[in-house]
Amino acid sequence: QLRGLLDHCHIADLADALEPFSPAQAANLLALLSLHHHAEAFSFMPEERQAAIAAVMARNDLAALFSEMESDERADLYNRLSEEQRHAVLPGLAQAEREDVRRLASYPEKTAGALMTSDYATLRGHWTVHKALLRIRLEAPDKETIYQVYVVDKNRILQGTLSLKQLILAKPDAIISELMHTDVVSVAVDEDQEKVAEIVRHYDLLAVPVLDEERQLVGIITYDDAMDAFVEEATEDAQKSASVATLGSSFKDISLARLFTKRIGWLLLLVFGSLFSGAGIAFFEALIAQHVALVFFLPLLVGSGGNAGSQAAALMVRALATGEVQMKDWLHLFGREILVAGALGFTLAIAVAGLGWLRGGVEVAIVVAAAMVCVVMSGSLIGLCLPFILSKINMDPATASGPLVTTIVDATGVIIYLGFASYLLS
Amino acid sequence: QLRGLLDHCHIADLADALEPFSPAQAANLLALLSLHHHAEAFSFMPEERQAAIAAVMARNDLAALFSEMESDERADLYNRLSEEQRHAVLPGLAQAEREDVRRLASYPEKTAGALMTSDYATLRGHWTVHKALLRIRLEAPDKETIYQVYVVDKNRILQGTLSLKQLILAKPDAIISELMHTDVVSVAVDEDQEKVAEIVRHYDLLAVPVLDEERQLVGIITYDDAMDAFVEEATEDAQKSASVATLGSSFKDISLARLFTKRIGWLLLLVFGSLFSGAGIAFFEALIAQHVALVFFLPLLVGSGGNAGSQAAALMVRALATGEVQMKDWLHLFGREILVAGALGFTLAIAVAGLGWLRGGVEVAIVVAAAMVCVVMSGSLIGLCLPFILSKINMDPATASGPLVTTIVDATGVIIYLGFASYLLS
Ligand SMILES: [Mg+2]
Ligand SMILES: [Mg+2]
Ligand SMILES: [Mg+2]
Ligand SMILES: [Mg+2]
Ligand SMILES: [Mg+2]
Ligand SMILES: [Mg+2]
Ligand SMILES: [Mg+2]
Ligand SMILES: [Mg+2]
Ligand SMILES: [Mg+2]
Ligand SMILES: [Mg+2]
Ligand SMILES: [Mg+2]
Ligand SMILES: [Mg+2]
Ligand SMILES: [Mg+2]
Repeated sequence: QLRGLLDHCHIADLADALEPFSPAQAANLLALLSLHHHAEAFSFMPEERQAAIAAVMARNDLAALFSEMESDERADLYNRLSEEQRHAVLPGLAQAEREDVRRLASYPEKTAGALMTSDYATLRGHWTVHKALLRIRLEAPDKETIYQVYVVDKNRILQGTLSLKQLILAKPDAIISELMHTDVVSVAVDEDQEKVAEIVRHYDLLAVPVLDEERQLVGIITYDDAMDAFVEEATEDAQKSASVATLGSSFKDISLARLFTKRIGWLLLLVFGSLFSGAGIAFFEALIAQHVALVFFLPLLVGSGGNAGSQAAALMVRALATGEVQMKDWLHLFGREILVAGALGFTLAIAVAGLGWLRGGVEVAIVVAAAMVCVVMSGSLIGLCLPFILSKINMDPATASGPLVTTIVDATGVIIYLGFASYLLS
Repeated sequence: QLRGLLDHCHIADLADALEPFSPAQAANLLALLSLHHHAEAFSFMPEERQAAIAAVMARNDLAALFSEMESDERADLYNRLSEEQRHAVLPGLAQAEREDVRRLASYPEKTAGALMTSDYATLRGHWTVHKALLRIRLEAPDKETIYQVYVVDKNRILQGTLSLKQLILAKPDAIISELMHTDVVSVAVDEDQEKVAEIVRHYDLLAVPVLDEERQLVGIITYDDAMDAFVEEATEDAQKSASVATLGSSFKDISLARLFTKRIGWLLLLVFGSLFSGAGIAFFEALIAQHVALVFFLPLLVGSGGNAGSQAAALMVRALATGEVQMKDWLHLFGREILVAGALGFTLAIAVAGLGWLRGGVEVAIVVAAAMVCVVMSGSLIGLCLPFILSKINMDPATASGPLVTTIVDATGVIIYLGFASYLLS
């Protein structure tokens, strides 16, 4: 029945349909599929889920499944198996495959090495197109892609690349080395996955070859895994933009304790950061006691500064992440932000000046309007610069989150506003 | 020399290298390339840039370039041409191509129709594999991909799909309709690009077929364009997360006036939102005048509530965007947030209680600690619920930005804190 279902739906849908079942139930249902479909269904499940199901499978079944999986998926699963399970699955593999699993599993997470597969097709430069096509056809069933093939010399140094389309359109007796592109876009094995994904996207690649220090071809990263990396990095940045540490697992299924840990760090840091605002207020306590009406405008002014700063920071973080803006653009953008923030501050000042006049007369109106322009401008410039500064000191610019910017701008805003007020009112 | 350069670098790098040149200079340099390379270089430039260069090209050159471009790129450029330029390029195209341009250009932006290309290969179900491969080879030069091909009947109704890999591995006399997958994942022509990109990613597709209401095949969307859509949507969400309206163009090159317009709307809305905080403070003015020390803790308390709320909102918005969380999960997540936010609030309360005791004695310590727990919990729950509420009223959940959450939590925080204080201190 389950096999019949496969005629009518995509294997990814089958993987999704198994979600509500316990690992043991899912394992039983998956066992009804062919080994090939079982491995494919696995590839559409989150790694945590794969590991949970693997944990309840019989040793033999797991070993068989393991040898059927794609090399990149297999290495990821291997990293999540217990020591005991690893000993169960390795003997089921041929010597070369065993080494392949260990090698692929050894690269640090979120690097090119961790994303790559070793199931790619290679050619030799002196072959004819005819011979190349025969070889590709022979090897196709075991390869993750045959649409982009790689030309290597006898030391596996990458010489060039060819698409299957080129091969199909070429004369059968043409020589590979005369046909191939030699300007190959590649990545280093220790490259950050964020960079890898951006390269795949920028050049519209089906797959990018991964090279070691000697320019030996050690793997390829396919577009689908690059796309997953993109989404993972965007999620990481979205979380950082709100001062949450990278969850590293599904938000829906994360444990209470982990979610707490990922959030409390920044909250504690920021609560102590906001002591500066408190100190600023304490410094002007006498002034406040004299003109309590001033407090009315405090959230409005520092809030606007924080909002404008959050805008500037978010725009900058995103532009840096997509590579649209580089460090060298800083001065130009700073200059532009002065003008834009000035205009924003001025507009907001007009909007609230009337209110200041209503509640405290002309003097308060002037204080509030002048403070608004300064708070919005300083807030915006802080928001704009923070990602650059973080980048300069080798921190992720995405750490320049809304809450961080807001906390800093709160303190500067309090000082600017109450400073103005004490100067003009007393 | 420029052609020589092409032997050593990717065409995308060439497009980047032309960036510093004026449109007229770039047009002159591009004219040195073959028409094919010229069109390819164009495809790696932002659309604004393509349009700027097109504007300075001679009519004939533009018409020739236009007929060489890929159908999806061409339609996008067409949408950016002036009425006059359109009249210049259309006569250079064959009747069928002219209709194709007009049709592709007619779909609303950010829908499947606007992303799709009409350069795909179709087969008929009764063909043999041998005939299919001959046809594909014949048509390959004009197709954006031949790695995924589509089987249609005489009315262009989609029957199934096949990969080139399957075709290459099949027996030459096998019949297409017996080989093809009939469980085709497809999208409707008016589908949102966010959804399209997610489908391409979820199913690891090389391309997704686009169908009209009669299930006729009208185009395909390739993985590279889906990836661009992903990045565009993530940028949109990142900007929304900081209350910036979708820029719709490059941040680096946007005009001052446009950047101002995209930011001022929310800032004005939020400044009026923060009047509620001001009103809250005004309501407790007598209390503040009596206990000025209370103001010291105001930024610290409402800040923490805003930060926790921003965290909850960002986590939720992202989980909704990736489809990891759906509306039906609301209750479960709300329950979990009560526990997590309670723990966060309690931890922060302990951290600041000592400070309250130092500055104002036991009573202030109790007020500050109790207020912290309540403010953090209400802030978190507001942050968590806001994206769901927005979604319910058919607004983009990403509108639940840090600044919006902060502004709402500011007001509730002021009332909670000063409410507590007035109850306990007077
Ligand atoms: Mg994986
Ligand atoms: Mg891996
Ligand atoms: Mg692209
Ligand atoms: Mg893979
Ligand atoms: Mg990263
Ligand atoms: Mg990042
Ligand atoms: Mg393209
Ligand atoms: Mg385009
Ligand atoms: Mg289009
Ligand atoms: Mg995938
Ligand atoms: Mg395209
Ligand atoms: Mg959208
Ligand atoms: Mg969106």
